[in-house]
This record gives sequence, structure tokens and C-alpha cells, in this order.
Amino acid sequence: VSEPRRPSLPGTARHGATLPGVRLPPGTPLAEPVVRRLRDACAEVRPATAADTRDWWPLSVQWATHGLAPTAAALVVAPRSASEVAAVLAICSEAGVPVTPGAGRSGVCGGAVPVFGGVVLDLLGMAGLTSVEDADLLVDALPGTWGDDLESTLRSEHGLTAGHWPQSIAISTVGGWVACRSAGQYSTRYGKIEDLVAGLDVVLADGTLVRTGGRAPRSATGPDLTQVFVGSEGILGVITSVRLRVRPVAESERRAAWTFPSFSDGLDACRRILRRGATPAVLRLYDPAESARHLPGVEGCGLLVLDEGDPGLTSATLAVVAEECADAASLEPSAVDHWLAHRNEVPSLAALAEAGVVADTVEVAAGWSALPGLYDAACASVSALDATLAVSAHQSHAYPDGACLYFTFAGRPGPELVDAERYYRAAWDAVVGAALAAGGTIAHHHGVGINRGRYLATGPGSSPVLLAALKAALDPAGILNPGKLGLASPWGPPPWP
Amino acid sequence: VSEPRRPSLPGTARHGATLPGVRLPPGTPLAEPVVRRLRDACAEVRPATAADTRDWWPLSVQWATHGLAPTAAALVVAPRSASEVAAVLAICSEAGVPVTPGAGRSGVCGGAVPVFGGVVLDLLGMAGLTSVEDADLLVDALPGTWGDDLESTLRSEHGLTAGHWPQSIAISTVGGWVACRSAGQYSTRYGKIEDLVAGLDVVLADGTLVRTGGRAPRSATGPDLTQVFVGSEGILGVITSVRLRVRPVAESERRAAWTFPSFSDGLDACRRILRRGATPAVLRLYDPAESARHLPGVEGCGLLVLDEGDPGLTSATLAVVAEECADAASLEPSAVDHWLAHRNEVPSLAALAEAGVVADTVEVAAGWSALPGLYDAACASVSALDATLAVSAHQSHAYPDGACLYFTFAGRPGPELVDAERYYRAAWDAVVGAALAAGGTIAHHHGVGINRGRYLATGPGSSPVLLAALKAALDPAGILNPGKLGLASPWGPPPWP
Repeated sequence: VSEPRRPSLPGTARHGATLPGVRLPPGTPLAEPVVRRLRDACAEVRPATAADTRDWWPLSVQWATHGLAPTAAALVVAPRSASEVAAVLAICSEAGVPVTPGAGRSGVCGGAVPVFGGVVLDLLGMAGLTSVEDADLLVDALPGTWGDDLESTLRSEHGLTAGHWPQSIAISTVGGWVACRSAGQYSTRYGKIEDLVAGLDVVLADGTLVRTGGRAPRSATGPDLTQVFVGSEGILGVITSVRLRVRPVAESERRAAWTFPSFSDGLDACRRILRRGATPAVLRLYDPAESARHLPGVEGCGLLVLDEGDPGLTSATLAVVAEECADAASLEPSAVDHWLAHRNEVPSLAALAEAGVVADTVEVAAGWSALPGLYDAACASVSALDATLAVSAHQSHAYPDGACLYFTFAGRPGPELVDAERYYRAAWDAVVGAALAAGGTIAHHHGVGINRGRYLATGPGSSPVLLAALKAALDPAGILNPGKLGLASPWGPPPWP
Repeated sequence: VSEPRRPSLPGTARHGATLPGVRLPPGTPLAEPVVRRLRDACAEVRPATAADTRDWWPLSVQWATHGLAPTAAALVVAPRSASEVAAVLAICSEAGVPVTPGAGRSGVCGGAVPVFGGVVLDLLGMAGLTSVEDADLLVDALPGTWGDDLESTLRSEHGLTAGHWPQSIAISTVGGWVACRSAGQYSTRYGKIEDLVAGLDVVLADGTLVRTGGRAPRSATGPDLTQVFVGSEGILGVITSVRLRVRPVAESERRAAWTFPSFSDGLDACRRILRRGATPAVLRLYDPAESARHLPGVEGCGLLVLDEGDPGLTSATLAVVAEECADAASLEPSAVDHWLAHRNEVPSLAALAEAGVVADTVEVAAGWSALPGLYDAACASVSALDATLAVSAHQSHAYPDGACLYFTFAGRPGPELVDAERYYRAAWDAVVGAALAAGGTIAHHHGVGINRGRYLATGPGSSPVLLAALKAALDPAGILNPGKLGLASPWGPPPWP
């Protein structure tokens, strides 16, 4: 069952609630002169409700189930243009007011939660395509454009596709994809969002509007400054326009499926496929538990394959896949159909929480050689927790040098909120610990937000020294999304120590 | 005729020479206590000769022809390890000494020229592969590794290839590729260096060693900080190790060639090929002048195509190419052989200069829709200069959203150095102006250095505000490669105003 577009959960907003493991201070109400200036800069300014300050971080769903929706007092400011964003940021920089940008609020790590109150910058009012260049396969989209709106407009009006299909496509926005380094289900062909972004318009903390990238496919004019903001989760600037690479809607599509005796056998086949240069859009390998869930009646570890594009290229791609799967048992291609029909559904976290279940997904990535060991270690470590009901994984995004393992865990700890929090933390530590021990990254495409901040100092892929230096350089007053990515802020440390 | 590995030109080193358009100050000799500390930190410290401070910037070849090799007085420091680099940078940061890193010195924009003297950090002593992970297709290379050494070691000892074939492969190094955003001749299949780099070890200006990226193919733990240093040309840190994605040596190779009635017809065929998802390693389109040079006897605009990899995938790729070239005249595939045999040769700039000829290449890039107009405008504008003998171009690197146009110009201005300088500047302005007017980038893979610094404020792909902020954050004393990328420095403005 899909959740509605915006998180709407039970629970009572309690500013400054004290919860087992998270400190959310009450936030300082804004001074009246600042509010007046914000109202002058932007037509829509209103007090934030709980729905304006939550996302889909599963721990916050647990809180809601216990009647709590902790959130700092904040003001929603909804700009309609980049210049309104600039005016708002200039005011907030001068007044030292925290600003937390958000749009779809579909993040699962608390990234859009206004930890220290201040201004919630709601970018949903800046939506739509502002240019489509068919010959250059480039489009400009405003940050608040819903993912499914982007895709349906591109397809129906232009015969184009972004090729970007995150599970959250109907509840997430283009700006959110870029801010959190999103991945789509067809990423093995089309790339992750960082591969699709050609340039950005960004408003810096002081209100300066900068443009990165351009109308050229590659450049050698200094570092690629677009990449400074892709994955910056609102801490370095506010994205006000996204230039995306797009492709023509595929002419043809091919499906195939196999089953492997073990997860490591399947992983090795995936590795060999990518090594040969084949990049099927979907190459999705389930472990035994997830196979049983998605491919009822099939023994072993199911591999779903889908490619789309030029008929000759997709045929050649599927031929490579078939050769590398020669030792596996082939399944009917219709095995892919079921996944396609249900691929954006997620179990209701609220219903699970009501039933006393604490569940989440943890996507990590590592080199091929490390993946089987990472899988075994993470599963063993989560299973060893008393409360665990289930842990499973699938390989969801593959590259020549490695892949993403997407773990799902569920447990039923004691009835108190403190039990839920303790179990949640322990299960995360188990998977993240296995990823770090394998030399991998602790996040493939869900970002950091509040939840992963406590790991960031030790995780590869980002050096805390560098990130702190960028933050100080681009946001000296520290107003942008304070409390995230493990960084200290003028209002205190991150809330999840 | 290939030039030797290191620039070795006639001319007399003159510290602080005054030249027509370039200010190169004499440089301040280092204080004896600083020299002593540098000698304690690093075994190899010696006064720089002209050969230690030049690169292949064609304007500097003109100077040499006029008996001048202007260079600031500098000390060569040749570290053997990242910790030696760190010690040297810490000393120089503290003492306020300029540090200009270099290795192969094959750059063509003056990027490794120590404009304000100080220390020339010669990284050639840090060479070789330090790890090869076959299953993960990742290798670690030290920055001073010559390109051809990297490729031959990978091939002969590991059956792997970097797939990176810059024309300069025998005179350039891995660290230089990364620092200047290099492109290889097979980039349409393998990507540019920014696509191949998985992570870096970098020593910051104050001597802090940081590691970016990791052993995971993609990550969502904040921005990709590797990309802050790819293309930074030594102004933000010194690269001490490069993690590269590699591929197995190709199993098969296919060649094909066609000729088109016009350059724009050929460009449109290239566009359609990429649009369909085909990525032949080489897709090289010559304009009529370059066709006549490289394909004697062939009318029109020659297109050379080469792909390598899995036989089925390369066949499917060549089939797409053939379909999109159906209206062109096909040539014998052996047309590709000649190019392959001679692809790393460059005319001797020194010999041309001796003959009074001023020549250079200018690689720019833009969206497909802008390329025919860009080509026409640049050719017309260079041709309009009195001294011009020839201007031509080829399309050298193609992407779904656009391509690189690689212009070559030659002119015979008056005999004085001031004439050479004036013509050189005017020809560059003509091509760069056309690229900017087309909304393109002013550099595809040669970088900025001294030569392009004067355009950087107006070029897309890099915002001067952002670059200056990064520079201030990571190198507050401004010691790293001052005078480059159009940035001001404690020692003065860039030397090419």
C-alpha cells in the first residue's frame, strides 16, 4: 500500500519533546521584525504544523505511534522564485535564523526536519519544466517538481524520459533527488542522479545566486562545482533549478529472469555481466528471503533483468546476461512483470509500528569482492539481536566496480519507545558496521540527514575535515539545515549523537 | 614527430622577463631557514632550471624561439611520499611560500608554471601502481606515474586497461590527468578522467592528508568531494594517490569509416548515434580541411569509428552506427588504421615557431544543437584575422548531450614577439568567443592554467564566486599554484590579464 504524498501521521506535535535517543530542542520563535521582513519577501508565510516538519524517517513514525510528533517551532516560508529564495536567505543569514529546505518530505533519514526551528523553506511552489531541449537531451526543472509529474510530462509531451525511477517517484521531487543523491530502479542503464545532473542554479546562504555546469556535456574549467551541491542535503545552498540529462523514450524493452542457488553465486553473475560492459537497466538480485517474498514458488535467489532502448543494443545486452547466467535456472520473463506492477509499493510503516514492529531499510554499497562477506556479516549481526524478526537484502544497483546491497530489517522489541529506539539503533549499527568493515560506503542513495550523521566521521566517501571546510566557506553563519550530516551548528550538535 | 617527454626548448631563462602580454615576476628567493627545513623534510631539493618550470603552452614556445624562457626563480622539491608532501606543504603554508605542483609538464596552458616562484613540487618520484583489485576493477596509482607506464603495466601484468588514451599519454602522468580533467581518445566508451576517478588522496595546503571516495561504486554520504579536486589544477590540494576504475582488456575490436558531404551532416549523425544509446569508443569526425589531411583522396568529412569490448555489444554498437550513417559514403575500415598508427604524433611546435608560425589547438564543447553554428562562427572569426594561414576542427569526444570540437589554428604574424602574442590572443578570443556565444564551455580537456584564466569569470561550468570560496576555505594562505584559473593571489593577479 502506498503512503500519501505528504507524511500524515497520528501523533501530537510537541515542541522540544525529549525522546530516548534524540534531542530536538524547542526552537526559538522568530523575532517579529524578522517575520515582517520574511512576509515582505515572500507571499506565503505560515506557522509550521507537524506535517510541515516531518519526513518518512522510520524512527519518527515510531514516535508518532507513541503519540509524539516532536518538532521545533518553525515558520513555513514558501517562495515562488529563485529571487524570493535569495531574499529569504539573505534575511535569515543576517538575522541568524536556521533555514531547512524541503519539498516532497519523502526522505527517510530526517534530512528535512527543522531540528532547530527557524524557517522551513517549502519549495513545492516552484514546480514544472522551464525548458526542454530535444536535440541536446537536456531539460531544466524547478526543484519542487514531483517525480511522476516530471516523468509523465516528459513522456507525453516530448517523447523523452529522465530514466530515473526511485521507488518514491510519486512522493519525491527533483530537488530532493539531487539534494540527497537519489538512485532510480533503472540506474544500471541511466545512472544515479549525480550522473544525470548537468548543472544547477543554487542560492547560497547569503542570498547569492550561482549557476554551476552549463550547456556543455563535459568541461575542464576547474572542478565540477555542480557536484559540490549534489548530495549536500540543503547544508551548502538551496537548489532552485536542476538541469537534467534525458533520453528518448525507449523503443523496445526486454525482460528475463533466473534463479541462483546462492546469493553469492548471483552476485558473481552480476559482477561478470557488468565487467563485460553490459548495462541492463534493471539487474535485481534477491536473497532467499526476498526471493520467497517476490517470486513465490521459486527456489533460491531470483535475478530480475530488464533492459530498454535500441532493440539491437538491448538484445546484445540480454545475450551477455544470458551467457553469464548459463549455470543458473532460467525463469519465465513474466517473473519481472509482478515486480514492475508493484515496484513502488512499500509496507505501511505506520501499520507496522501500530503492530509493535520496528522496521527500516539500509542501503549500502561496496566493491564486488566485499559484497558476499558484507551480506553475511550484516545478516548475522542483525539476526543476533534478540528482537529481530527478519533481515534480508537484495542487490539493487550494479556498476562495474561494485553494487548496492539494500537491507531490510524488522524486529519487535519491547512496548516502550525506549525499546524501539534501542533496537533501531542496534540494527542500524549492525548493517553500517558490516559495510564499514567491508571498506564500503554507509549510504548508496538515501542520504544522511539526522539518522546517519553519527556515522559520517568514520564513513568513507566523505572527509569530515573537507565537508566542514566547505560548510564554513559557503555558509559562514551556519543557517542552512543545521543539525544534519553530523555537523555541529551555532544552535548545538546534531540531535542523534 | 613526437616531442621528448619533458619540454626541452632553446631559450635563456630570464627571471622576471617582461613579455608582450604576460607578467612573470622574478619570484622571491626563499629564506635560508625555509630552505633548510625543506631539505630536512625532503631529500631532493635543488634550484629549478628552465626545464623544471615550463610546460608545452605554445606561447611559451614562441618565447623560447625568441631566446627567452621566462621563469620565476624557484626551488624544485621532489617528495617520495605523501607524508613528505605533507611536510613540505606545512612548511610552505607557514612561511607563505608559493607551491606549484607538476609532474609530466605536458600541459598546454601553463598550468604547471611557477608564476610567483617559490617551490616547484616535482611529483615524478611518486610513481607506480600500489594496488590492483581485479574483481572490483579498481587500481591505485601514484600521481607521478607516466600514462604509458600505467597502461602497459595494467595490460601486460593484469589484463586490464584504464581505457584512457590522451594524445599525451607518453608525456603525461596520472596525477596530471586528474588535476586537469583530461580526456582520452576512447572517451565515448570509457568516459573522461572525471568518470574514471573513484577516489583520491590529497594533501591540503596546511599539510592535512585527506582521502575522498572509497571502495564503493557510488555513495550518498554528502557531496562527492573527489570532484572538488578533479580539475583543481593544484590550487586546492596536491594529489598523492589516484583510485581509478579500470576494465578488462577488450576481447574484440571493430573499425568502420564513412564520409559526409558536410561537417554538420556528420555532426548530426554522431548526435543520432549517441541518442540511440550507442557509445563507440572512437567517433571522430573531421571537417573538410582535416579530412584532407588525415584521409588523403577522400572527399567531404571523414568519420572514423572504433569500438572495443564484448563482441556482441560492439557488433550491436557498430550496427547502430551503420544505420545512422546510411546516407553517407562508406570508406574502408582501414581508414581507421592510419589514424591509430599516428594518433599520438603532434607537429613540432618549436619547428613551427622557428618558421614564424604561431599555432595552437582549442578544445571547446557545447550541446549538439549549437555545434554547427559554433564551428562556422569560430572558423569565420579566426579566418578573418589577417595572419591566419589555416583553421580547422574535428569532433573528438561525443556524449548524448553534446560533443567536443577540437580546433587547430595556425598563422604567420609579423616577426616580432609582440606580433606573435597579439595574433595568439586574437585567435584564442575568436574560438572562445564562439563557444561562449553558443552557450558552450571554453575548455573540454586541456584545463585552464594561465592561458584560459582571463576567460574564467565569464565561462559557464564554473562560478568564480564558488571557486574563490573553495580556494579561501582550503588554502587560506593562497600558497597553492598562485596565478592560475584567473584567481588573484597574495603575490598579485594572474599573469595573463
